Amino acid sequence: MYDIQSIRADFPILSREVNGKPLVYLDNGASAQKPQVVIDAISHAYSHEYANVHRGLHTLSTIATENYEAVRGKIAGFLGGVAEEEIIFNTGATHGFNMISYGWAMQNLTAGDEIVLSVMEHHANIVPWHFLRERMGVKLVWVEPEADGSFDPARVVEVLNDRTKLVALTHMSNVLGTVVDIAAVAEILKPRGIPLAVDGSQASVHMPVDLTTLGADFYCITGHKLYGPSASGAVWIKSERMAEMRPFMGGGDMIRTVTRDEITYNDPPHTFEAGTPGIVQMIGLGTAIDYMTNIGMANIAAHEASLRDYAQDKFRALNWLNLQGTAANKGAIFSFTMDGGAHPHDISTIVDQKGVAVRAGHHCCQPLMQHLGVNATCRASFGMYNTVDEVDVLVDALETCHRLLG
Amino acid sequence: MYDIQSIRADFPILSREVNGKPLVYLDNGASAQKPQVVIDAISHAYSHEYANVHRGLHTLSTIATENYEAVRGKIAGFLGGVAEEEIIFNTGATHGFNMISYGWAMQNLTAGDEIVLSVMEHHANIVPWHFLRERMGVKLVWVEPEADGSFDPARVVEVLNDRTKLVALTHMSNVLGTVVDIAAVAEILKPRGIPLAVDGSQASVHMPVDLTTLGADFYCITGHKLYGPSASGAVWIKSERMAEMRPFMGGGDMIRTVTRDEITYNDPPHTFEAGTPGIVQMIGLGTAIDYMTNIGMANIAAHEASLRDYAQDKFRALNWLNLQGTAANKGAIFSFTMDGGAHPHDISTIVDQKGVAVRAGHHCCQPLMQHLGVNATCRASFGMYNTVDEVDVLVDALETCHRLLG
Repeated sequence: MYDIQSIRADFPILSREVNGKPLVYLDNGASAQKPQVVIDAISHAYSHEYANVHRGLHTLSTIATENYEAVRGKIAGFLGGVAEEEIIFNTGATHGFNMISYGWAMQNLTAGDEIVLSVMEHHANIVPWHFLRERMGVKLVWVEPEADGSFDPARVVEVLNDRTKLVALTHMSNVLGTVVDIAAVAEILKPRGIPLAVDGSQASVHMPVDLTTLGADFYCITGHKLYGPSASGAVWIKSERMAEMRPFMGGGDMIRTVTRDEITYNDPPHTFEAGTPGIVQMIGLGTAIDYMTNIGMANIAAHEASLRDYAQDKFRALNWLNLQGTAANKGAIFSFTMDGGAHPHDISTIVDQKGVAVRAGHHCCQPLMQHLGVNATCRASFGMYNTVDEVDVLVDALETCHRLLG
Repeated sequence: MYDIQSIRADFPILSREVNGKPLVYLDNGASAQKPQVVIDAISHAYSHEYANVHRGLHTLSTIATENYEAVRGKIAGFLGGVAEEEIIFNTGATHGFNMISYGWAMQNLTAGDEIVLSVMEHHANIVPWHFLRERMGVKLVWVEPEADGSFDPARVVEVLNDRTKLVALTHMSNVLGTVVDIAAVAEILKPRGIPLAVDGSQASVHMPVDLTTLGADFYCITGHKLYGPSASGAVWIKSERMAEMRPFMGGGDMIRTVTRDEITYNDPPHTFEAGTPGIVQMIGLGTAIDYMTNIGMANIAAHEASLRDYAQDKFRALNWLNLQGTAANKGAIFSFTMDGGAHPHDISTIVDQKGVAVRAGHHCCQPLMQHLGVNATCRASFGMYNTVDEVDVLVDALETCHRLLG
């Protein structure tokens, strides 16, 4: 039994009003709200158990280190039970993809090598590869989604060749909601020995993820979308790939010895964790993951599937609303425009007057916008605490918009 | 009037006990504790005013963006009133130095060029330059402190030549407490056109810093040492130097346009701030800076100078205690070993039994340890909330150590 009211009561911000109306928070694709247990974990850590980690022997440092390091196992478990040593803490998927680009790809690719991307990718999984194009002459090769927003793994086969050195794909589009069949792509790449980097920023929030069977080589997650603190996150990197990497950021903790002339590095994953980390953020992310796990990712996915179905039916009844992305297998993320050319920014501003928070813009997905032939969309993205009543509030607000702007 | 008891009451963790004794927290060089106002600012942001920044038009996003962006001005003011556009938000000095190394130095240095460092530098200001040595053939040139730990700017002159492209120095040693006369070094470098990167991780915590007169080109600060949240921080970069940089991390927010084939970048400082930032951490850091500014950096410096003098007198009376670093101009940071070869780790563990938190190890300064001829030291580093009574507790604990281990 998914007790939605009890879950909502766990998130203090959900009881606030916006513009005199109850907040209807549908901007989860950008960032999720935090349950009280996460806020309390942060306050508790700073109020009672804070010190720098790893390098201290005193009591507070030992406690902080234990609390912090325990999160590695929580994330490893959350992602299906991978090895803890394959989890690198970071500040989110942007940090993760830059680490893969600077640490793995710069080391292993040369001019003329190719990286395959879908046009659905978020800029976090585009710009680091553009750097390699600009700086090293690496070629970016693009795969398009189908007309309904679904992604056909067979399209990846068409673009592979001897120069393909990496495929980097989202697991769930942050604009269309499309779930990409990563396992199918991995089956294609495996016999060819081509590594697969996956953006799990959305998927890990909305569905169970098992990296022991998915077939990826790299998997990025983002803590602030996972109901955890801002600037928390992690990347899972298969140990064979980690062994092919050079360090990304340099500083304390990631070294074994430093002299004036030489340097040797700490063991993975610490090689890739330079300096004082986001101690309390990661502790908070551990609490968020415990919170999600207690509710159950399958339960969260089922709840959000029912929201998706309900919302989809409602939206389809609005014949002036143009939904982008209607793949059968999609998360509860809806991008849309309106007939009549109402600007998404204006839509967002008007529904905000009804307390509804949706996002308008390119959603850090300009190549997808170009592919769709739009400059921007409005996006309603749902989370574990949203309700069908909130869908109704959104639809009502959109109808007001349509009357005003249509 | 510096009301030390009132200040102590602002930090909840200071009222806790460790091993049945009142906590005496002397590990501020590693990380500082947080006042209740900072903890409250974090809780408030997550409980009432949280959303992703910059890219949203709805009310919560607008509020979060305003709260977050207001911190830029606070940091600019804290550092003497530099331009806000010269402040880049990051996760601390490690991130800052890696940005300078990858973003500025990789772009502007070639094989055989030289970077001058002091042997007092923290690994955060060493390892990113070792990367350039390993990867590009850049040469690292080292300057030693004097026997008392002071730093003579004239020593920098001796090592400069036509290949010198950067000097990178700490403003205050995290091991010796030595304050480096950065303005004097800047005077030496200015006519030669050599940029100066400064590690302000310690100095910014303990003394007023005015970057409008200091003469540096780059200045890194670390939020978690500034009584702010973990993974908060900033780097100030002179606009002329920023113009010479290429982006470091790629992702959302730092771009203007992304297509399949091309990319153009956002204006500085956003060029250097990729992806969702540490929204709430930076808001917390802003609160920490307000807190310090309200007390007054000159007052904090005066209080800590009195602690330093009191502690120095007490330590000098212990003829079995070997103090490292006795420069006239130093902060309240004391590194020491004991006659008889007691291991610093054992000292740390024993004083911890008395509730005293000190750090033992190489303090991320292995080249300095090699220079001093030790593997490790014990370090007591004071902060704005420490008292002379705590010095006495430390001295008493050290005497116990000496009896047990001496």
